[in-house]
Formats: sequence, structure tokens, C-alpha cells
Amino acid sequence: MGKSRTAPTLNDVAKEAGVSTATVSRCLNSPARVVDETRKRVLKAVDKLGYTPNIAARIMAANRSYSIGAIIPTMDNAIFARGLQAFQDQLREKGYSLLVASSAYRPEIEKDQIRTLVARGVDGLLLIGHERKHEIYDYLEQHQVPALVAWSYMPEARQPSVGFDNRGAMCDLARRVLAAGHRHIGLISGVTEGNDRALSRVEGVRDALAKAGHGAETMTLIETPYGIDNGARAFAEMMQRNPRPTAVMCGNDVLAVGALREAQSLGISVPGEVAITGFDDIELAEIISPSLTTVHVPHREMGRKAASELIDMVEGRSAGQSTCISTHIVSRHSLVAPKN
Amino acid sequence: MGKSRTAPTLNDVAKEAGVSTATVSRCLNSPARVVDETRKRVLKAVDKLGYTPNIAARIMAANRSYSIGAIIPTMDNAIFARGLQAFQDQLREKGYSLLVASSAYRPEIEKDQIRTLVARGVDGLLLIGHERKHEIYDYLEQHQVPALVAWSYMPEARQPSVGFDNRGAMCDLARRVLAAGHRHIGLISGVTEGNDRALSRVEGVRDALAKAGHGAETMTLIETPYGIDNGARAFAEMMQRNPRPTAVMCGNDVLAVGALREAQSLGISVPGEVAITGFDDIELAEIISPSLTTVHVPHREMGRKAASELIDMVEGRSAGQSTCISTHIVSRHSLVAPKN
Repeated sequence: MGKSRTAPTLNDVAKEAGVSTATVSRCLNSPARVVDETRKRVLKAVDKLGYTPNIAARIMAANRSYSIGAIIPTMDNAIFARGLQAFQDQLREKGYSLLVASSAYRPEIEKDQIRTLVARGVDGLLLIGHERKHEIYDYLEQHQVPALVAWSYMPEARQPSVGFDNRGAMCDLARRVLAAGHRHIGLISGVTEGNDRALSRVEGVRDALAKAGHGAETMTLIETPYGIDNGARAFAEMMQRNPRPTAVMCGNDVLAVGALREAQSLGISVPGEVAITGFDDIELAEIISPSLTTVHVPHREMGRKAASELIDMVEGRSAGQSTCISTHIVSRHSLVAPKN
Repeated sequence: MGKSRTAPTLNDVAKEAGVSTATVSRCLNSPARVVDETRKRVLKAVDKLGYTPNIAARIMAANRSYSIGAIIPTMDNAIFARGLQAFQDQLREKGYSLLVASSAYRPEIEKDQIRTLVARGVDGLLLIGHERKHEIYDYLEQHQVPALVAWSYMPEARQPSVGFDNRGAMCDLARRVLAAGHRHIGLISGVTEGNDRALSRVEGVRDALAKAGHGAETMTLIETPYGIDNGARAFAEMMQRNPRPTAVMCGNDVLAVGALREAQSLGISVPGEVAITGFDDIELAEIISPSLTTVHVPHREMGRKAASELIDMVEGRSAGQSTCISTHIVSRHSLVAPKN
């Protein structure tokens, strides 16, 4: 019991447990990769010999699961696919796996999934957007699970984020639409409740109108869940409004593709009669005809940076630092000046 | 210790642990939903009182995590998105959460992810396609994690599957192409190694040629990883071949969209000069211009049925039953007879 007693070595533990030193090391550093029985034997030997002087450090090491959770609003439509793939690639380089759940844009499902992922022992969480109940952030703090927000950048928010300025980007695009001469603007937005990205984009359009000295009557707003069919329906409704918009801005590319499809089936020429814009620059935006003028979001860059930051948080090197990824407008063929 | 001793009740356990009976019940049935500390206290009380007569049953109950893992080859391109969303919706109705990982079509990554998901305590696994090393299935059996295969139906395989007949469906489509009069067929396939869906589709085309009495020289094959850009590159290469194919069949819609895009940029008219077909019938297939003739896979039906079957396996009601989902050809605008 005295200080003179020689400290047990990795070798002693391995001998006691009847395994290799590599296995002992793996047990302490990535227990998930060792079968239960072996892990128990090694931990028993560790306990018996009192191998690690600092118990807290051992518990921490043993608790590391080397898996990260991400909860995205939808797996459909490729909005999150590219960024998430880059996020996973970067995690993998650092030895972490990714587990993904999707919430169908429903806060109560997201809450369940956060609990599931925490219960399954993820080391950290990636969440989309800032807007959620404070009790969720309390819960994560209580369980000491670092969480990083992506797809949204709000440096003043409680949680750190690696995202972009949804409001500023949409404001720039709306100014472009106004500069082309449009004075009746339709906006097909995603549902803004519980979705700070959608809300910020609507505010961005309002900012542009205010800056240009136009009244609120310049804009007609329709909210609808994301989805191609919903975009199509909203566009048909928009075409019934009086005055009819000459430009329809959409909250994302998926809605814009729906709007384009509906314009085609209504025999409304784009961009001749009505201009359409998107947001995200997913692959579809370039492939569709006419190709979409949209906001390019560097999804891969965001995914990579989010992974690096979250691992720094998990490994205790960062308390969570926010990063703003810059976006830019991609001019293609769906936006021109209005006819009259 | 005698048999006359009254068995402890749920109430006794609750009293001993200082929690409600509902909490005790939750601990035994869905421990993931109870915070660690409470769960430990309850299990301690259960142990102390010897509450459950059948220890195996208690361990089983306590081990149920009510989460299911799925490993898909890619999150990109929406190939798996729709089926997976339906799979998740159905799981959710039955009280299970879904954790998804993606393997980038790489077997060694998939193997790691299977271990991660098993280590994180999922109750069952959904895997895409049958082809993988036997040791993986051995590992799953050893850990008693039921696994179901989807997107592929092979009743003679070791693992049960809820999928469709990739070979038969592609054979039907190839017969349609031959019936239209095409005699020089290009096939842009996904990489067949380690991907039984891709391989079966190639075999389907060969079956159709053999049935129609055409030689192997009727078909020109290029393999490439799934992706729009890869489809485009393969199409450009295909157009250099001699004889030049009059119809290019693609292993999935994503490759077909790439082929269409490249045809456009090469100034080759589709379907006038070259016909193009896809497989899957993702949303893109209908939206692209010209719209794609393709094989419709009822992804939602497959996802729902796979979820029901896997839960039956997890809950011990089924040893794993295979189901074949039927597909059909959707005729749109990308396939007509050859010019000459």
C-alpha cells in the first residue's frame, strides 16, 4: 500500500487477464471494439492490480465510445446528404463512427432521438439549427455530451455552431431579384415554426425589401413542408394570387424544383413569365431545366469543419467555437428580368 | 430461501429503490429511456430482492434497447432515402428508434459499423444486399443480433431478406429495350464487386440477351461507382465505342441522370439518337427531361415490410422470413426505337 510499491504495468494487466497488451490498450481506448467478455476480464484485471493511478482518467477512457450521433430533419431529398457524408468522412479519419437519426422535422421525435443516442453512449452530437427547448440543452449538459449545431450560424446562441448566415444569404439573393426589376415577389418557405433556417431566410427577404424601400405588400408568403410535391402545390396557389408574382423565391432547391415542375405542367414559361430561385445548390439545381439560380452552400466544407470542431469538443481541446462558412449566389438560367 | 417465501412484487422493488412502479417497469422494458443513476438503483433493488424469478428473462428485458441499426451504402443521391424513411416510420410506430450508418460501399467500413452498432446495443440490424463475409454473419449470430437484408431478395441465402428480384426486373427492362429494336446495348453498371444488386442487374441484361438469342457482343459493359458525374463520364466513354450503342441501360437512376446530362452537353439527342434507361424510379427520374424509363421499386412498401419483419425477429415471433416485393417498368420518354 506504501508509495514504494512498484506500479503495475500494462504487461502485468495483460498477463493477469490472459490477453495481449494491445488488447488491454484497446479496452481502455476504444472499448466498443472489444467483445464484452474480454473487456470484462481486462477491466477486472485492471481493477485487481489497480493499474491506472487516476481512476477518473480510466473511467473517461473507458467511457469513450468513439461514436458520434447526428440528428437531421430528413434523410430524403439530399439536402443534408452531402454535408453529412463529409462530416462522416472526417470523423472516420479521426477514428470515430457516425450514427444518424432523422426527426421528420418534428421536435418531439428529435427529443426522443437525442435521448436514444445519449443512452447508446455517443461521445458528442451534431444537431441541425439552434431552435429547440432549453431543457434539451440542459439534458445534454447534465449528461456531459458536447453538442454542436450546423446548417445555422448564430454566434450569440447558447450552443456553438458551424454553419452559415441563412438570413444574410437570402437577403443577398432577394436583392439580386429586386435588382433584376421584380416588384411582385412570391416566397415559398419551409415551415418556419421550430426551423430557424427557414425563418431566417424569410427574414432575409424582408430585410432586402426594407433596404430597397419596398413595403411588405411586395411579398406574398406561402409556408409548406419541404418536398417536391409541396413546392408544386404552393406554386400553383401562388399563381392564383393577385397581383401574380413575377418572381417566386423558394426556401430551398427542393421546393424550387417542385415549383419548376408545376410551372411546366401549367404551361408557364420559366424564366420568361416567372423567375424562380432556390437555396442550397444541391445536384438537382444544376441538372434541372432551366437550371436554378440559387445560393451555393459549401456543404462539404461545413461537414468537415463541424466534425473537426466536435471532436475537439469531445476530446476536451475546445469548449465549442462557432464558425461561419461563407455562401455565394450561383447565377444560372431561372432568373431574368420581368417581362413588363 | 424456502419455496414458501413470498415472491417480491413490483411494488417491493419500487419501494426499495425509492421510485414509482412505472419507473421500475420502464427500467426493465426500455432501460434506454431511464437515466443511468435511476436504472442502477432499480437494478440493485431488483437484484437485492431477487425480483424476477427467471434471470434470463430479466437480462433479455433489460437488454432490449428499442433501437435498430441500419447500414446503407450511401446517404447521397436519395437511392436509399425513401425506403429508409418508411422503415423508420414503421419502427417508430412500434416504439423503436433507428440509428443509421453509411459505408460508402466499402465492406471494411461496413464491418466496423456493424461492430459499432452492436456495441451500442441495437436490438437488430438492417443490411443492404446479401454479399458479405461469412464471419460477419457469424459475429451477428454470436452476439444474438437478428439481421435482415433489404434491397435484395435471395431466398436461398443465409440471411432472410425483404427485397426485390434485381435480376428479373433488369431482365424485363432489357427485353423491352430489345423489343424496341435495339441491337447494340451499352450497360453502365455500378461496381459489381461486393454489390449483389449491381451484379444481379448485369446478369439480368445477359439473361435477356441469351433468351433472345443474341451473343455477348451485343452488350458493352462499363462499371463505375454510383454518382451523377461517374454516369456522365461512363456515357462519354460509351459513345466512343465501336459499334456505338443505340441504347444505354444504366444500373440505377443516378447513373442514368449523369448519362442524360452528358448526352445533352455532347449534343446527342435522347431518345432520338440514343435511348437511356434507369433503375429505382427515384424522384429525379420523373423530373429530368426527357423523363426516364426505369424500373419502379416500391421503396416505401419495402421499408415498411422490412421494419415489421425485423421487429418480429427481434421480439422472437419470427426466425426471419423472406419476402419478395414486386417491381414494374415505368415507361416514360427516354426509350424509343433506334433510328435505323
